[in-house]
Amino acid sequence: MKGAIVYKPGSKKLAEEVSEFVNSNGFHAEIVDIDKNLERYNYIIVIGGDGTILRVLQSVKNCPPIFAINTGRVGLLTHCEPHEYEDVVIKALSSFEVEEFVRLSCVVDGSELLALNEFAILCSTPAKLVEMNVYVDDVKVESLRCDGMLVSTPIGSTAYALSTGGPIIDPYLNSILIVPVAPFKLGWKPWVVKDDRVVRLEFDRSVFIVADGQSNIEHERSVEIRKSNYPARFFRISDRLKRTVEKLKKIY
Amino acid sequence: MKGAIVYKPGSKKLAEEVSEFVNSNGFHAEIVDIDKNLERYNYIIVIGGDGTILRVLQSVKNCPPIFAINTGRVGLLTHCEPHEYEDVVIKALSSFEVEEFVRLSCVVDGSELLALNEFAILCSTPAKLVEMNVYVDDVKVESLRCDGMLVSTPIGSTAYALSTGGPIIDPYLNSILIVPVAPFKLGWKPWVVKDDRVVRLEFDRSVFIVADGQSNIEHERSVEIRKSNYPARFFRISDRLKRTVEKLKKIY
Amino acid sequence: MKGAIVYKPGSKKLAEEVSEFVNSNGFHAEIVDIDKNLERYNYIIVIGGDGTILRVLQSVKNCPPIFAINTGRVGLLTHCEPHEYEDVVIKALSSFEVEEFVRLSCVVDGSELLALNEFAILCSTPAKLVEMNVYVDDVKVESLRCDGMLVSTPIGSTAYALSTGGPIIDPYLNSILIVPVAPFKLGWKPWVVKDDRVVRLEFDRSVFIVADGQSNIEHERSVEIRKSNYPARFFRISDRLKRTVEKLKKIY
Amino acid sequence: MKGAIVYKPGSKKLAEEVSEFVNSNGFHAEIVDIDKNLERYNYIIVIGGDGTILRVLQSVKNCPPIFAINTGRVGLLTHCEPHEYEDVVIKALSSFEVEEFVRLSCVVDGSELLALNEFAILCSTPAKLVEMNVYVDDVKVESLRCDGMLVSTPIGSTAYALSTGGPIIDPYLNSILIVPVAPFKLGWKPWVVKDDRVVRLEFDRSVFIVADGQSNIEHERSVEIRKSNYPARFFRISDRLKRTVEKLKKIY
Repeated sequence: MKGAIVYKPGSKKLAEEVSEFVNSNGFHAEIVDIDKNLERYNYIIVIGGDGTILRVLQSVKNCPPIFAINTGRVGLLTHCEPHEYEDVVIKALSSFEVEEFVRLSCVVDGSELLALNEFAILCSTPAKLVEMNVYVDDVKVESLRCDGMLVSTPIGSTAYALSTGGPIIDPYLNSILIVPVAPFKLGWKPWVVKDDRVVRLEFDRSVFIVADGQSNIEHERSVEIRKSNYPARFFRISDRLKRTVEKLKKIY
Repeated sequence: MKGAIVYKPGSKKLAEEVSEFVNSNGFHAEIVDIDKNLERYNYIIVIGGDGTILRVLQSVKNCPPIFAINTGRVGLLTHCEPHEYEDVVIKALSSFEVEEFVRLSCVVDGSELLALNEFAILCSTPAKLVEMNVYVDDVKVESLRCDGMLVSTPIGSTAYALSTGGPIIDPYLNSILIVPVAPFKLGWKPWVVKDDRVVRLEFDRSVFIVADGQSNIEHERSVEIRKSNYPARFFRISDRLKRTVEKLKKIY
Repeated sequence: MKGAIVYKPGSKKLAEEVSEFVNSNGFHAEIVDIDKNLERYNYIIVIGGDGTILRVLQSVKNCPPIFAINTGRVGLLTHCEPHEYEDVVIKALSSFEVEEFVRLSCVVDGSELLALNEFAILCSTPAKLVEMNVYVDDVKVESLRCDGMLVSTPIGSTAYALSTGGPIIDPYLNSILIVPVAPFKLGWKPWVVKDDRVVRLEFDRSVFIVADGQSNIEHERSVEIRKSNYPARFFRISDRLKRTVEKLKKIY
Repeated sequence: MKGAIVYKPGSKKLAEEVSEFVNSNGFHAEIVDIDKNLERYNYIIVIGGDGTILRVLQSVKNCPPIFAINTGRVGLLTHCEPHEYEDVVIKALSSFEVEEFVRLSCVVDGSELLALNEFAILCSTPAKLVEMNVYVDDVKVESLRCDGMLVSTPIGSTAYALSTGGPIIDPYLNSILIVPVAPFKLGWKPWVVKDDRVVRLEFDRSVFIVADGQSNIEHERSVEIRKSNYPARFFRISDRLKRTVEKLKKIY
């Protein structure tokens, strides 16, 4: 069992402290560059915020379980704050209880993108409208002009989708959330559908496909988004619902 | 196998026509008063709209499968329009394919209320605010002053909850939607949670508990709402999602 | 110059203290019952919150200027908190700078109702829909089924209308805000129109007409709401916009 | 009196027909390139939609009155449809009744931008958040992270601002609408303020400043937006409110 420790710029010192602490407590973890191959580790300790976790996830398909110490703003995906990590990380590594969360998959030009939060399909020209048709299992559920469209997981319902009028979704409810960005239409609604459905978007001009606010591909015509076979894995947070509620207070 | 035919005021003639038609096609169904004991029938044919169906459901715990011919406005729960019922009803009764939808349960003063769409917990004084605390499995997720609170099923997401800022939920997604009515608060969100969770509402003054816009009980202090053991049963609609989308266009 | 001091239940002691303070500082003010004829005073000191002020306003047509010390929750219309009233009230009474805010007028069955915040036109049966047509200067701008409709002033934009999706309006912008309560419709918008326009509502069933959450009249068919000739008068708050922003933080 | 006739690509034939018609009816108008100096004409006839009108307005400071024949989608700013232009244009040119609508002004790097609909201040990186502070006459009314911010006129309330949660504003109400694009915050509201107020936005990273969806300047730190001295001028539409309501139905 060997763990990787990665950190966001500015959190190097805490990373070194954490490294020393876990290694001196019988675990074997090493600080590695965030862009290294992380799949070959048995777990990943992230020192950073949600952005850092999402960046890590962009680079792993078969995801080792992640433990995160929050040095970002909100840190919805993190396990603890810097001042309290000692007990929490030891308990997590000892029990090794892990939970999985669905990632969404979108194949563009032959390569598969993965997203834990959401795919944002955004008009590539700022302040211009793109015409979007939204299909759920081949049923056209919406047709509108907008700045873009989000296809989000429950975990992502507290990320970008929170900004565009989506509901907050139980992290354990197996579902996909579809919500437009700045729809030029009177009368539209967010949709929440089962996560074994396939969401297809058709658009009439070039868009950016943005996975978790990280990678960014320009594309034309249409995309299909569905549940991926490669979930994200995290060390279990037993009171995740409560934690989400508390973290949300930081977004007021 | 014996069916009941019930109708809303004004649809008597169509009810008689339907009765004659199904009986002359080898089925045995009789027109009965909507307030009669309908549980002892093997199926129920409703001539009316969603309101009539909801009224029928208020009177049955073990629900015989319902087939509905729409003589109301929108008719989201109905199977067909009056001009096309013949083929549809024969096919439904012959195949007898049935699907179940969760109803919510709320025990008030020892008796159980059931709702297919939603429980609306509304301040009993118009234009006055009630203070509400919302708990999901004992986690307090919201606290606000409002006109009321809706606890809705996916089926109900296109009913009252559509009016109060809720999303549209896949009818087959096992979930509970919680959304306030006229919340006097900056910053609140609808919540969509798994349907095996228990929703508890605490309030600081007298409220009406309204099940599906039908029954209406005054109550104080708090209520618990959870998935009932008595689902509603309907003859299957194979393209329900598509049908929902089409019906929604009537609400523009 | 003679002032009235009125107080909400529970604030009697502060009222007596304020009375002694202003009278010992050369002003002549007496504690009176809130239901007395207040128009014959030259000014009114209110010890209470917005609710108390609104109640006072229900009883006066020609409104003496109001000074309010907040013993309520938010107190958007008040001038100061109890701990700081001394300087503020003396300065106000000395300079006697007054500002006016439009009240809306609605004549029902021959008698005129006035509202500083809003008229709420609410379906008189809970959880039932009323069909509303909204006309602005005889142009039908909206038609929908809803729980009710608010016709609000800019001052009222931070009251009930804040709960139903309305914007926040500059207290000095001469305008009327129209916003539905729980509209059963996909696609509607709040409207903000000039305050010399006439708003007419037509409805298909009995409603309550509620002025500022205070008086409550049942009515049928239609109402017309327009700018009243009887504004509310308050001692000037020089930084009202800033104060509004600060008070809004209490509604998070 | 000499008029300019400009047209959007694809409407050349109608432009020629209109030119012939007005010239044969005693008016003197010539087809000119949309990028020519249009200020030296006494009026402008636009064959196109709102986009074409907005493009014309980007090129004129002292605005000759505009008459527009709709060959676009919605055409909220246009006077008539192609099949009915004859009577309408003759009546307009004969009576020469003109109305003005405020444009907003924003000085960037020493040059003044004008907008009839809105200034969109948008994060220059897609799917990234910009931190915005919003000041109205030096009062900080909002602080949040978002995709961007719109500062809109009443005319613009049915354009981009309609997509981002703003109300519909009476075209004759002298006001400025401020509304965020995809605000990552629980609890925010559109603001509607008097149009003699100054709106200042501060941001923590590079943004695009987009005037009426047309011109596009990258900028850092902060901008001030206020009522311009150069209004847009249009031939009067007597029933503009009614026309707006009818046009809005096209946005369902």
